[in-house]
Amino acid sequence: MAQLTVIPVSGFPEVHPGDVLSDLIADRVQLADFDVVVVTQKVVSKAEGRLVDVDPDDPLSHKGVVEEEALRVLRRRGELVMTETRHGFVCANAGVDLSNVPRGQVTLLPIDPDRSARRIRDGLRARTGMQLAVVVSDTFGRTWRRGLTDVAIGVGGIAAVVDLRGTTDTFGRPLQVTEVCVADELAGAAELVRGKSAGVPVAVVRGVERGWFREGSVRGEVVRPYGEDLFR
Amino acid sequence: MAQLTVIPVSGFPEVHPGDVLSDLIADRVQLADFDVVVVTQKVVSKAEGRLVDVDPDDPLSHKGVVEEEALRVLRRRGELVMTETRHGFVCANAGVDLSNVPRGQVTLLPIDPDRSARRIRDGLRARTGMQLAVVVSDTFGRTWRRGLTDVAIGVGGIAAVVDLRGTTDTFGRPLQVTEVCVADELAGAAELVRGKSAGVPVAVVRGVERGWFREGSVRGEVVRPYGEDLFR
Repeated sequence: MAQLTVIPVSGFPEVHPGDVLSDLIADRVQLADFDVVVVTQKVVSKAEGRLVDVDPDDPLSHKGVVEEEALRVLRRRGELVMTETRHGFVCANAGVDLSNVPRGQVTLLPIDPDRSARRIRDGLRARTGMQLAVVVSDTFGRTWRRGLTDVAIGVGGIAAVVDLRGTTDTFGRPLQVTEVCVADELAGAAELVRGKSAGVPVAVVRGVERGWFREGSVRGEVVRPYGEDLFR
Repeated sequence: MAQLTVIPVSGFPEVHPGDVLSDLIADRVQLADFDVVVVTQKVVSKAEGRLVDVDPDDPLSHKGVVEEEALRVLRRRGELVMTETRHGFVCANAGVDLSNVPRGQVTLLPIDPDRSARRIRDGLRARTGMQLAVVVSDTFGRTWRRGLTDVAIGVGGIAAVVDLRGTTDTFGRPLQVTEVCVADELAGAAELVRGKSAGVPVAVVRGVERGWFREGSVRGEVVRPYGEDLFR
């Protein structure tokens, strides 16, 4: 295997509805064939106009938006509302987010984050003529583990889950279950170079296995349908 | 932020009980100050002799080992046994693993994976004189998402969770909850260069934020105690 490089892309302006993210990205980084461009949900939602006004003086006014955005509320504890979104994501507050958003507004998740990723990928391909993939990432908590990690909510041009079943282990035996969610691992790797307040909404991962480049889908490959998991 | 590089370390021999992993690693890669060395659980368990004999002709004989290793069985469905281990990890089969292990044996998780990580770090530091960190990784499923990802089960010399609360977002407002589990993101990044059957049990992550280098603990920082989560 070759080595992987994760490159932060800085110097982004504040993103507004209608901005073309592929242009903002291509203006700021020299891309190469088979690069994976990881873009945070926040700028995707802003570019797509997924912003809602809330009362800036009422710290709880976004809670009504959370109730509207949630398909189901799975658990509540104090301020924490664990929800299932229409996309099938299980996350806090239905993905409604106050941070890094102008006062008096919150962002909602993109309506179809796989489509968002494909659209950015198409724009980057049109600009550069290169074979590229895009991952749209967001920051989620985990059921059994403290601390948040970045995961993929949408992909364009790359598999979300890579199925290694059928290959053999180092003793020549068929491997059992080794479907790896590389999209989430790419999102997490990008997070390591971004920092939270540094205004680095994009990172490029270079050196990714070329066999993973195909039309993928987080919704189709990663989201467990209601009833498939053992804990809902 | 600087860029990050993830370097696979290949050419490992089969690891046996008593092998000194820090020597096997330092013989195969030129380390640099502030490198994070990610080592898979499999070779750590083998080096520590955490191997148990099972009947090679009975595909279910490791199930008894799973029952012994589990602190609690949380759910069962068909072949799948979702367990809580003595470490507090929630994972399938209590971490008992058949793959990449000689026929007739299974590996158990290290007794104290944070201690395992610190021991490898101490060995590497003694060999190189450098400031280094070690992450011991394993491959876990996720409650709400398909596909496995590598996560940290132990760390030495690096924070497992980095607390960014108290810093401000790009609008100058205090960030709410941004405790990032960088140990899991480092484990996932390492997985991207390893492949499953390629015999690459170690990867080096170079360029990691130097402020994260301190004595950390997965058990202390990441494991949610029974009762803290909302779904057990």
